Amino acid sequence: MTATRADGRLPDQLRPVLFERGFQRSAEGSCLVTFGGTRVLCSASFTEGVPRWKKGSGAGWVTAEYAMLPRATNTRNDRESVRGKIGGRTMEISRLIGRSLRAVVDVKALGENTIVLDCDVLDADGGTRTAAITGAYVALADAIEWGKAKGAIKPGARPLTGSVSAISVGIIDGTPMLDLPYVEDVRAETDMNVVMTGDGGFVEVQGTAEKTPFSKAELDALLDLATAGNARLAELQRLALEG
Amino acid sequence: MTATRADGRLPDQLRPVLFERGFQRSAEGSCLVTFGGTRVLCSASFTEGVPRWKKGSGAGWVTAEYAMLPRATNTRNDRESVRGKIGGRTMEISRLIGRSLRAVVDVKALGENTIVLDCDVLDADGGTRTAAITGAYVALADAIEWGKAKGAIKPGARPLTGSVSAISVGIIDGTPMLDLPYVEDVRAETDMNVVMTGDGGFVEVQGTAEKTPFSKAELDALLDLATAGNARLAELQRLALEG
Amino acid sequence: MTATRADGRLPDQLRPVLFERGFQRSAEGSCLVTFGGTRVLCSASFTEGVPRWKKGSGAGWVTAEYAMLPRATNTRNDRESVRGKIGGRTMEISRLIGRSLRAVVDVKALGENTIVLDCDVLDADGGTRTAAITGAYVALADAIEWGKAKGAIKPGARPLTGSVSAISVGIIDGTPMLDLPYVEDVRAETDMNVVMTGDGGFVEVQGTAEKTPFSKAELDALLDLATAGNARLAELQRLALEG
Amino acid sequence: MTATRADGRLPDQLRPVLFERGFQRSAEGSCLVTFGGTRVLCSASFTEGVPRWKKGSGAGWVTAEYAMLPRATNTRNDRESVRGKIGGRTMEISRLIGRSLRAVVDVKALGENTIVLDCDVLDADGGTRTAAITGAYVALADAIEWGKAKGAIKPGARPLTGSVSAISVGIIDGTPMLDLPYVEDVRAETDMNVVMTGDGGFVEVQGTAEKTPFSKAELDALLDLATAGNARLAELQRLALEG
Amino acid sequence: MTATRADGRLPDQLRPVLFERGFQRSAEGSCLVTFGGTRVLCSASFTEGVPRWKKGSGAGWVTAEYAMLPRATNTRNDRESVRGKIGGRTMEISRLIGRSLRAVVDVKALGENTIVLDCDVLDADGGTRTAAITGAYVALADAIEWGKAKGAIKPGARPLTGSVSAISVGIIDGTPMLDLPYVEDVRAETDMNVVMTGDGGFVEVQGTAEKTPFSKAELDALLDLATAGNARLAELQRLALEG
Amino acid sequence: MTATRADGRLPDQLRPVLFERGFQRSAEGSCLVTFGGTRVLCSASFTEGVPRWKKGSGAGWVTAEYAMLPRATNTRNDRESVRGKIGGRTMEISRLIGRSLRAVVDVKALGENTIVLDCDVLDADGGTRTAAITGAYVALADAIEWGKAKGAIKPGARPLTGSVSAISVGIIDGTPMLDLPYVEDVRAETDMNVVMTGDGGFVEVQGTAEKTPFSKAELDALLDLATAGNARLAELQRLALEG
Repeated sequence: MTATRADGRLPDQLRPVLFERGFQRSAEGSCLVTFGGTRVLCSASFTEGVPRWKKGSGAGWVTAEYAMLPRATNTRNDRESVRGKIGGRTMEISRLIGRSLRAVVDVKALGENTIVLDCDVLDADGGTRTAAITGAYVALADAIEWGKAKGAIKPGARPLTGSVSAISVGIIDGTPMLDLPYVEDVRAETDMNVVMTGDGGFVEVQGTAEKTPFSKAELDALLDLATAGNARLAELQRLALEG
Repeated sequence: MTATRADGRLPDQLRPVLFERGFQRSAEGSCLVTFGGTRVLCSASFTEGVPRWKKGSGAGWVTAEYAMLPRATNTRNDRESVRGKIGGRTMEISRLIGRSLRAVVDVKALGENTIVLDCDVLDADGGTRTAAITGAYVALADAIEWGKAKGAIKPGARPLTGSVSAISVGIIDGTPMLDLPYVEDVRAETDMNVVMTGDGGFVEVQGTAEKTPFSKAELDALLDLATAGNARLAELQRLALEG
Repeated sequence: MTATRADGRLPDQLRPVLFERGFQRSAEGSCLVTFGGTRVLCSASFTEGVPRWKKGSGAGWVTAEYAMLPRATNTRNDRESVRGKIGGRTMEISRLIGRSLRAVVDVKALGENTIVLDCDVLDADGGTRTAAITGAYVALADAIEWGKAKGAIKPGARPLTGSVSAISVGIIDGTPMLDLPYVEDVRAETDMNVVMTGDGGFVEVQGTAEKTPFSKAELDALLDLATAGNARLAELQRLALEG
Repeated sequence: MTATRADGRLPDQLRPVLFERGFQRSAEGSCLVTFGGTRVLCSASFTEGVPRWKKGSGAGWVTAEYAMLPRATNTRNDRESVRGKIGGRTMEISRLIGRSLRAVVDVKALGENTIVLDCDVLDADGGTRTAAITGAYVALADAIEWGKAKGAIKPGARPLTGSVSAISVGIIDGTPMLDLPYVEDVRAETDMNVVMTGDGGFVEVQGTAEKTPFSKAELDALLDLATAGNARLAELQRLALEG
Repeated sequence: MTATRADGRLPDQLRPVLFERGFQRSAEGSCLVTFGGTRVLCSASFTEGVPRWKKGSGAGWVTAEYAMLPRATNTRNDRESVRGKIGGRTMEISRLIGRSLRAVVDVKALGENTIVLDCDVLDADGGTRTAAITGAYVALADAIEWGKAKGAIKPGARPLTGSVSAISVGIIDGTPMLDLPYVEDVRAETDMNVVMTGDGGFVEVQGTAEKTPFSKAELDALLDLATAGNARLAELQRLALEG
Repeated sequence: MTATRADGRLPDQLRPVLFERGFQRSAEGSCLVTFGGTRVLCSASFTEGVPRWKKGSGAGWVTAEYAMLPRATNTRNDRESVRGKIGGRTMEISRLIGRSLRAVVDVKALGENTIVLDCDVLDADGGTRTAAITGAYVALADAIEWGKAKGAIKPGARPLTGSVSAISVGIIDGTPMLDLPYVEDVRAETDMNVVMTGDGGFVEVQGTAEKTPFSKAELDALLDLATAGNARLAELQRLALEG
């Protein structure tokens, strides 16, 4: 793996990753996550009670919403609120974030509480959905601590069953590469987002052939890269939450 | 692989698959596809010309829309037209179908023509998106033949670079199984949809841990099952188009 | 009446009519109705209980929704779900179907149950609203039988007070004709849809002068044609339900 | 015909009818029409040019929109603008008004001009759609005169081929009655709206059995009443336009 | 102040003001207010009970909605119901009217009752929002009297703490002027709407520099004019309510 | 002026104000503005060309959109994109920001270029609209410099005619106070937002009596406070743009 990347990284290297906890004053969990030029403000809103259709189940509810500021991208995009409807890409990513976070939440242990994760992209340079999942986990962990401290979660309950992170991988000019910025993303022959738990289990694997179909060998190479990348992210999340 | 399935199939067996071409009178391609209890009416509408933003590019455009009739399911769902907006699941599947079909279309060879694939689920018993992709390919192939016969596609041009099909796989009680009906789908620990070309390349792999994260070994077993299933579907598509 | 029609029918002759009951697996009533080239999938969804504003009234509720698949027509129409709103024609026909079916339902005898009739046009060749009403009656009758068998309707109660069907009539080149296909519909000087009960009562009469105003004599001739056509449809409905 | 009506009218008598031309300062045609307690402000907006899809046809375009003020009725109705969508009843009536007016317009003689008829119900006491059609004709006639005076309509061209009016009729306690106010409308067994030209041709006949199906004899009696009522309205329109 | 105005008024003179109470038959309060060429139909709908989120508070609720008929203006505007959303200007004015009226209502004295003020502009010649506030007060006063007579408001309670009116002022060619019609409004360098109580308190002051910023001295001159204009309106409201 | 404020400020003192230019990588102007606990990300998107209805006018176009992240506030608010429509408050503020910025732009000097100002509130503690205007000016100034450097604005042209800023003032317990945080805002008897140019002209004055009407003397005191506050903001803007 010695291919040259525009930003000087090795193929298996992450971009600089940063977690700024407590970015917003009021949210029960708030984390501005940075993956190179991509910055996503993740907030976790903890409210006691659950939607009506979950009442009495004893279980909680975790959901997510993803959005981009109009000028997160190179050219301005119209607001979805102005267009009056949410695009397919936005919905798809919101659903992915929600599923990914729920994979590490024991809703019974959470009790009848709701946590909404808002992931707003302030700056977009590829990998916004993977940064969002990774940052949302940090906000979620803080919100759960808040719920424990507040007494809304029962003493001794452990709503988090592990950590979760996500990273993008892709094949560019035949070389598998980790954590693609925008310029690489548009050139990738195959593009994959891999969501994993901190102990190495797969939560979600989404691979797409952008130009030509890919082989099982290519798939395996990408999964290896992603496994290493997610292991590193899990470590950085742990450090951020201890900080 | 000797686990018992409710419908008597072996774990690696497809449900009965049927393609009824020409179901609608007017569409350039029309195919009612059946995967067991799942039936999807796929139509391909061929129009000369492309959307404004593609004009002059010399290339064509292929897109897809998926929807369910209100009573395709066990209990009635409100129409998305009545609710005034399209749900996230619908958009996600529409986008998946479009990407999958475009993977086998050479848009330059198609010329400045547009093909819209409409996949309307008349009856839903699991695997609606995989049936839709598989049936839409048949409608697409017919619409392209129509375009050639009509002279809208240049003589000698070969817009189709191969065939494409899709199948669901999942792990149920620890056993990987092929082509899940609804009752199996809701019980699956891991659920995966695999889109492949007729010559065995991967176009899209979407795996989700529904209950617990999955391992690389499980992923490999599922991909093997799907590869065999898609090979069989490619064969059935070929027969249907010859018929 | 010896005018020649494009499809060889006599002016007072129906197109071939077919009822396929049980087309969908799950609906309490489901009927694919065919009037020549027009095919409408009618499903009747029976649910116990009524909308909140009818609760405690002791009476049931019957309503209908009509829609067309995008490629039911010669050229593709955008989906109303994609446009985000339902067109005037769709609403008008949905309301007409609902009123027509309610005309033969004794809602007190139905008890506090709701039946929703979905009429989705798979293929459109004129007369979609009349085929929808005629097929929806068959689906409704099956759903009511289901409700009786299930015990949701009281033993001995007779929610159906009769049968209902509908047919189009029009004046073409001065000749009144029955059951107009698309090519005749666009040429008609006067166009009328007539909804009648099985015993010959009028439920709804909607006549429109498309080109020049019509006289009372013309109106009478059209109503006579429609009366005979509806009598034949009532007979065919009866046979289908016995089948 | 000696049945007693709440407002003292005979069964074949219209409510007091009034046309106030020029109610709005700017509209090319503006008429506040009164049918008893029902008051509809009809405006005709004349603009040179036609929608893009009619350009170059040499023909004009006439269309209509109907709406109710929130407090036209006994209890307040939410605004359709606030609900974000137009109801089925509103669309149906808008379409009816448009068809009715177009029945007396020769669009070739109108030339490439557009007239939009807005019918806003200020006060509603039954018969709002018939009052709207009848008043809109007066506004339309004024707008066409304006177009002639302005030179937008060719000298000598006669875009109006006649006059048009509408009236409601219904059967109440077995008696056919003309021009139903709200209290009668809700009690009617059969309800019919009849649109006619000034010379007695039928433009639109819409009859609905509200409670029990109606017979051909009842239909004939209602049409006779409506014919006489519309003849009287045509006379009143003529007087108003001469005034 | 001797500047010439197109309509012959002095700079500090109101246009002819008229209040027609009881314009609609059913509304608890209804007033057609005229400010020169501007006419707004204001209705006050009184209903017992309050929105759910106010229940049990013992206090009432007053809100307002403003809209324009399509042809109130020189050229026709599309309906907001047709466009499917309400424009910013409409919302802004609706909110202003609501705040202005609430400024003179003691909601505790009103008790758990709701009053909705609908202000529909029939004809627009500048100052529609100020006419709406001024006329809505008259409709509100009538609706409160209705509520007292009906017993919905407790005997002795005085929900109205005063009267409220509004007037526009602006600087045109350097001269401050009162109550601007459309032709003056578009030319104004500074435009201000001033809402005041009958005893001379300010409820809302909204001043906008349309072309160049304005000075404190100009602001003071405009407020003086508005104060005198509102005093005159308060007097006219009083007379109208006594009439 | 010696009243105690919760945050220790004097009545005529601003909260700490900070401008972080270049917060986003791609926007032609980007400024994260802080007014105490309120933080608004303002971006200015410069594009060559103007909307169709301004083409050929030789003049440019400046517009603004305001929005809040869901968790900028103490409790989470639903997204306007999810609700499918924009609230009245959002529209009102968007319009205010646009008007305020246009007050200091010479659109002829800007040439046929468009600048869109997006003001997204990341954290809200009162005064979000005034912070947005004040920060948007800084982003606008940077975007105009970009346009000059890029050559999109003619050499020598001076599109900015001055600077603009805004501040809130209010009366709390009888004392006029500057720059209200949320806790003061909800308690204010009178609330006013004042937009001024750098040389002391008024652009917009919006005062609202929240509880009781206010007098001319109170209005004057508030305007004096706001004038001093805006002078200080203009100085801080100048320093930020020199930095």
